Formats: sequence, structure tokens, C-alpha cells
Amino acid sequence: MSASLNRKKSAFENEMGSKPKIVIVGAGFGGLTAAKKLRSIKADITLVDQRNYHLFQPLLYQVATAGLSPADIAWPIRSIVARQKNLRVLMRSVTNVDVDKQQLDTDGGSVPYDYLILAPGARHSYFGNDDWETDAPGLKSIEDATEIRRRVLSAFEMAESSEDPYEQRCLLTFVVVGGGPTGVEMAGAIAELSRHALTCDFSHIDPSSTRVVLIEGSDRLLAGFNELLSTKAKSSLERLGVQILTGVRVDGVDNRGVNFGDDRISSRTVIWAAGVKAAPAARWLGVSSDDRAERVIVNADLSVPGLENIYVIGDAALHHSQDGKATPGIAPAAKQMGEYVAAQIKQKVNPVAKKQPSDASETAFRYRHHGSLATIGRKSAVIDFGRTRLSGSVAWLIWGVAHIYFLIGIKNKTSVVLSWLWDYATFERGARLITGSPPEALPANSVSEQESEVRRVA
Amino acid sequence: MSASLNRKKSAFENEMGSKPKIVIVGAGFGGLTAAKKLRSIKADITLVDQRNYHLFQPLLYQVATAGLSPADIAWPIRSIVARQKNLRVLMRSVTNVDVDKQQLDTDGGSVPYDYLILAPGARHSYFGNDDWETDAPGLKSIEDATEIRRRVLSAFEMAESSEDPYEQRCLLTFVVVGGGPTGVEMAGAIAELSRHALTCDFSHIDPSSTRVVLIEGSDRLLAGFNELLSTKAKSSLERLGVQILTGVRVDGVDNRGVNFGDDRISSRTVIWAAGVKAAPAARWLGVSSDDRAERVIVNADLSVPGLENIYVIGDAALHHSQDGKATPGIAPAAKQMGEYVAAQIKQKVNPVAKKQPSDASETAFRYRHHGSLATIGRKSAVIDFGRTRLSGSVAWLIWGVAHIYFLIGIKNKTSVVLSWLWDYATFERGARLITGSPPEALPANSVSEQESEVRRVA
Repeated sequence: MSASLNRKKSAFENEMGSKPKIVIVGAGFGGLTAAKKLRSIKADITLVDQRNYHLFQPLLYQVATAGLSPADIAWPIRSIVARQKNLRVLMRSVTNVDVDKQQLDTDGGSVPYDYLILAPGARHSYFGNDDWETDAPGLKSIEDATEIRRRVLSAFEMAESSEDPYEQRCLLTFVVVGGGPTGVEMAGAIAELSRHALTCDFSHIDPSSTRVVLIEGSDRLLAGFNELLSTKAKSSLERLGVQILTGVRVDGVDNRGVNFGDDRISSRTVIWAAGVKAAPAARWLGVSSDDRAERVIVNADLSVPGLENIYVIGDAALHHSQDGKATPGIAPAAKQMGEYVAAQIKQKVNPVAKKQPSDASETAFRYRHHGSLATIGRKSAVIDFGRTRLSGSVAWLIWGVAHIYFLIGIKNKTSVVLSWLWDYATFERGARLITGSPPEALPANSVSEQESEVRRVA
Repeated sequence: MSASLNRKKSAFENEMGSKPKIVIVGAGFGGLTAAKKLRSIKADITLVDQRNYHLFQPLLYQVATAGLSPADIAWPIRSIVARQKNLRVLMRSVTNVDVDKQQLDTDGGSVPYDYLILAPGARHSYFGNDDWETDAPGLKSIEDATEIRRRVLSAFEMAESSEDPYEQRCLLTFVVVGGGPTGVEMAGAIAELSRHALTCDFSHIDPSSTRVVLIEGSDRLLAGFNELLSTKAKSSLERLGVQILTGVRVDGVDNRGVNFGDDRISSRTVIWAAGVKAAPAARWLGVSSDDRAERVIVNADLSVPGLENIYVIGDAALHHSQDGKATPGIAPAAKQMGEYVAAQIKQKVNPVAKKQPSDASETAFRYRHHGSLATIGRKSAVIDFGRTRLSGSVAWLIWGVAHIYFLIGIKNKTSVVLSWLWDYATFERGARLITGSPPEALPANSVSEQESEVRRVA
């Protein structure tokens, strides 16, 4: 046993040495694309992630609403890159970047680099009100999603079990804060869950009387998209029975509801989809970031000012195109950045093939926007490719097949995709499991001492 | 909204009253079978479970070893019984049974009964060493399974990340305590996981050098089965590279391994499959139980001595057949008990059709043993129907289709079963996700202060 172990180990170590060391942090869309594009380079690549899986975040809301299982949207990183011989995967958390020693510090030791690609992604942000997280969880990880699923499904269970009409009403009120894509998808999915999947399940309550409220601070939903999509999304959600409040800023969240101005909505389940904050890449590097989302402000070639062998890509980077527009924090942008950075490093490591470009603008990263997309509930989507526009269930199906195939890009995952489409095409919600903390730990049972105060506010 | 709610509610309540109240605790195989068999009776049935899903426990080990997702083996109780109009589902935890008032006390209030069926199941037992649970989790719930999955997969990740050969060896040693069906299946599944699914995934370690040790206290595996199956299981496991220690009693478990006598195996991942203990039904009822597993000792008709309108079935009941044999704690036995008890209650509620039997032995529950079965790894199973014997992949496939269809019995779940068979027939382990506690909380990082002591013992 130890002989074969040593053989394998020393083979790996013998190959180390003169070859450049490329370290990639984060196996999201950006980091994984960079890793794959570097597969033919003579280098020692280390891909570091605190998780052992690549997460397909665009479908996380479906895990949160019991449509999909976690494993349907997460693939083990190791199996994705199993055939890439120049790459090693480490499951570790980054603690710092030592730019002088050129090493990445992690909870499991240091990893030296010649080139560093940081693609650590983002978490949700509470704009300074981090104490709201307990009562209004966000949706960025598998754990977030199963926690939201637990809360949403438990609310129906507790309503069924309750004899108090006021309590039932609060339990059947769901508030989603934030009208971006995640908020729109969550609100639509909860409305559908209650109106379709759960209709026959309860004898004491009427799940279709569920109230779903979507609160957005700006004056329209999907503010980052064009207005046509905003309008489509709004009317689709209203058809599903979602109540939409725009131009409303939440200024208080507790375990019994949300406050805005003098108003209050009593709700046992509040979901936060209102903002994102980058992973602390700027802090690791000791460089400046933008105030709002704490992203590293990168050069035109995605390198970090003053640290030309370090690149930041994806949601953790703030990149402005030549017309001054910020590159959006979406999967296609992260993938393009990963592709671009891989090409940059290839060129630096092995500069034979191409001549050096004459000025900086030639080498600058250019984001190509392929289209905007919003899914609003089952079999409903809008695709805007500029010239081509599609909507309804055909758009949803075309997008589903094409987009997922494109994003995963692994043939042997087709079976998973097909089973997903099959599950979703039927009306079942198979993953309707309340797991995690036992029911005793639910907010409604643990807050009785605050109840009187809350009722006063309400 | 409230109009329709009230209409629905009062319709439910109007039907209450003169009809007998039947309360079933537990939606496992026993409780669910009883509920279904009572679907045509004029009664108000309440099915109480602390979970919102029915769990297919026989396949739990596959969730623990990343072969299946939790949702593949768990079905929402409400959707299973959605069409049963005389039944209400409550997601609550039982705290006590008030036999004088004839009511079930729960964390959400009391539920009155005329007939009570207790089918609360069992948990794993540490024979008085409950402090071992932290270091040697058992396998009875979804949370248990995802926790074991996290530990098993994390061990490989930490071994890959470690530079210390001793540490790596400990991380790649897996100990399963208990050679019953669960232990045999777990040991086989971990061996296969390391030898097939993970082979290409790691560059630093050789997953196929994993050591899997199965420890059994008695002198053979599957002691409850016939000897042929024990021998088959042993040789199949040994072919997979599992080391089997029989006649060995573990007398110490800590986060660095297990002790037995003067021997010790250093291991970071110990899994407990050595014993079960019934849910506290005997305590709720204030009646006597057997010492070992704390099961309620029931009458020949599965009622509780002195409490003839209360029945205990499944793993929480100790029933002896007329030849003195104890009915085993397996799914078919629980289902037969559920069926029998439903018939008993039907007869009591509505005694018109059948004449009263002349003596007690005519009404006694009789367990019919349909066969023994053990699955040992992929596509390997042994079926013993008495006259017919099958082994290998054909047995595995026939059993898989027939057994699961039989146990679930719902047509619209066929798609789930098919997708399960499809996944399992390929060599992928799709559900290879480390979720739950962050890596920081893993044993290897949290126990440094105990390390010196442990090494001394080793």
C-alpha cells in the first residue's frame, strides 16, 4: 500500500520544480473555466476551494423551493478535472495572500505561486445589518438553500398544526427582499410551490391562500435588465399571485416580520436577496475595493494594480469596460474572464507564438454580452438576444437544455440534466424534505419572549 | 382567503365527533401501512411524525456513501397520503401518552385518541456509551447519513491535503463497528467508493490504498441471517478488500480511533452500526420493556398489556411468535404488523362482517418471513426465498426493481426509482457533496490537545 502511495507521490513531486506554479482560488464558473483553458500548458496548477464541489448557483433557488436536490446542481470538483494531469485540487480555506513571498496562505498550510487567479465569488450582503441574517437568510450556498427549504416547508407544517388564525396568517406570509433575478425567481417559486405542489397536501390550511410579497428598493424589478424584461417579470409574478412592492426600502428585520417606514408585514419567513458582497480578496491582497460590494478594482487586463501576476475575476472583481460600464456579476462574465486570464498567463509563460501587442487597449479584457434571461416560475422564461426574443415555455425548454449543457460541458452529466428536466417537467416536488435543525429550533418556538414587543410593532 | 380557509376547516371539523379517533405515531413502514389499510374506514385518523417525510431506511447507507441524494430515498408524507380523506398529518414530536385522558401529548399540543398505534421506530444504541456518538455516528436518519458522507469524503480531502504519512494513513482508515446488514453494506460501499468512484480523483494519495475494517462482536457477520449468507457476505467483502474482525468487542472510541482489548486501530472515521434502541414508547406508556433494546413487550395481538386500545408495532415492539422467536426489526415485519393492527381496529370499530374468533390464538399476529436479503456492494446481492436462491447482479437488479416498487407502491414515483437505478448502474457518485459543518469543525482540526494522549494509546 505505502509503496504505491509513495510512487504516486514522488511522480507528482518530480514533476514540480522548474515549471511555473499557477494557483487558482475558487472553482466557480470563472476559476473552473481558467483551469480548463490551462489544461495543455506545462505548469503545475493548484485549484483551491473550500468546498469539494462546483455549484451551479443559477438553479440554487430551485433547491430552496424543493424542486431539485443539492446533488442535482453541484458536481464534485475532482471529477470535473479528473483527467487534467497538470492540476491538483486542494479543499482548503484561504486566509491570506503573502504577495512578497508569493504564497497563498490557507487553513492547511501555504501554497507557493508564480501566477495567482483569485475567483472566490461573493456572498449576500446586508448593507451593515449583518444581524438580519438569522431572520432573513440569503441564498448563495447549498446550506443556505436547504435552510430556506426547511423554513419554507416548516412554515406550512406549523400553520397546519396551529389553531391560531393570526399565527397561521403570519406563517403563510412569505417576504422576499430584493427584486433582482434571485428575488424574482424565489418569489415565483414559492408562489408556485404553494399553489401547485402543496395544494392537496393540507387539510387544515389552504396553501393556495399563501401570501408572497416581493420587496424591491428601486422603482422596478430586475433593474439590471432592460425594461421589457422588468415588465414581463412583473406581470408574470402578479399572475402567480405575488404582491410586488417597488421603491420600498426595508429598514428592520426580526423573526416576526419586516419593517419599512411606518409599515410592517408580519411574516415568519423572510428571504434576503437584496445585495451581494465579494469574498475578502481585497483584504487578502491589501488593495483597494469599491465601497458597496467590496470588489477588487482590477486593471483592464484583470490583473491587480501593482501586482501584475495576480488576477481577480468573477464576482470578486470590479472591471470597467472602455465605455465605462461595469462587467456584470453573472456566470457568462465570469467564464469569459476565466478564459481571458488563462490566455494571458499562457502568453506570459510561453510567449513564442504571438507577438507582443503594441498598446494596452489591444490586450484589455472585453466582455461580450450574449443576452439577458429571467425565469419566472415553471416553464416561463424570457430570453433577449438583442435581435431574437423568445418567451414562455419554449424559451424555458430551449434555454434549459442549451444553457445547462453549455455550463457543465461534461458528457457524462447528461443523465443528471435529463433527470432534472424530467423532474421539473412533471408537477412533483420530490425534494420536499425538512432536514437540518430539529423543529424545536424554529424561530416561532424560540422567540416567545420577544412576541409581545413584536405584536406592538405590528 | 379566510373564507375558503374557514370553509375547509369547518368541513374537517364537522366530520369530527362521533367517529372514532385513530392516532398513528410514526410514518415509517409500519405506521404508513396501517394508515393506508385504514383508508376506507369511517374514522378520523391523525398521523403524527416529527419528520415531514417517510424515509426508506434500507438505502440510507447509499446516501452516506454518496451514491444517492436524500430526496431519492425520502418521500413527503403528505404527498403519499394526499388522497386519503379520513386522515390528517401533523408534523410534531411526541412527548408523552396520557393513557387516562386517552390523549397523545406533543410539542404542539395534545391529540385525543380512541385507538393509538405507536410505530416510532428505533435509533442506534451505544450500549451505555452514549459519549461515543460524537466520534462514531450511527446511521438512522438523513442527517446521520449526510454527516457520515461529510466525514468520509472529508477524510479523503484531508489526506490529499496532508503532508504527514501517519496522518494520511489514519485518514484513509475507516472502521465500521457492527457486522449486521447496515455494517456490511457500509463497509462494502466505502470500499467501492474508494476503489471505483474516487480512483482518478486524487493526485497526492491513492484512494485505492484505503483500509476498511469491519468489526463484529459475534463470531460471524449477519448473525441474524443463515450461515450461507454470512459466508457469502464475508467473501464478497474480502474481495472488495475489506478487513473483517469477528469476535471482537470494541471497548473504546475516540476521535482518533477505536480500542479493543489491548489493540487499537487509528482511524479518523468510525461508523457505528452495532445496535439499535427503540424510541421511548415504553416510557411514554409507563409499561415494561426489554433491557437490551427498550422495546415494548406486546401481547400476541400487538396490543399493550393492560392498554388494549393501544398497539405498538415495528422496531419499537418486542413480539414473540408462538414458537418463541422474536419478530425481527425489518421493514416487511413492520409492514405486516401495520396491516394486522389496521385489521384489528377495523374489526373493533365495525364488528358487523366477521364473527368473533373463538380463542386468542386465532387472532394472534403471525409474522410470515418472505426471505432474507443482503446487498454487498454494487450489483451484488443474495436473495434467499427458502426454495429459490439467487446471487450476483441479476439478484441485485430483480430485487432493486421489485422491492422498491413494493415498498413505495406509488405509481408517480416510478420516475424517481428509474433515475435511481440509472445512476446506480453507472459508476458515477453524483451526490459526492460535503455539506453541513464547515471544514474547520472537522475532528482532525479540533482535537490537537488530545493528540499526544491518543498517540500514546496507539
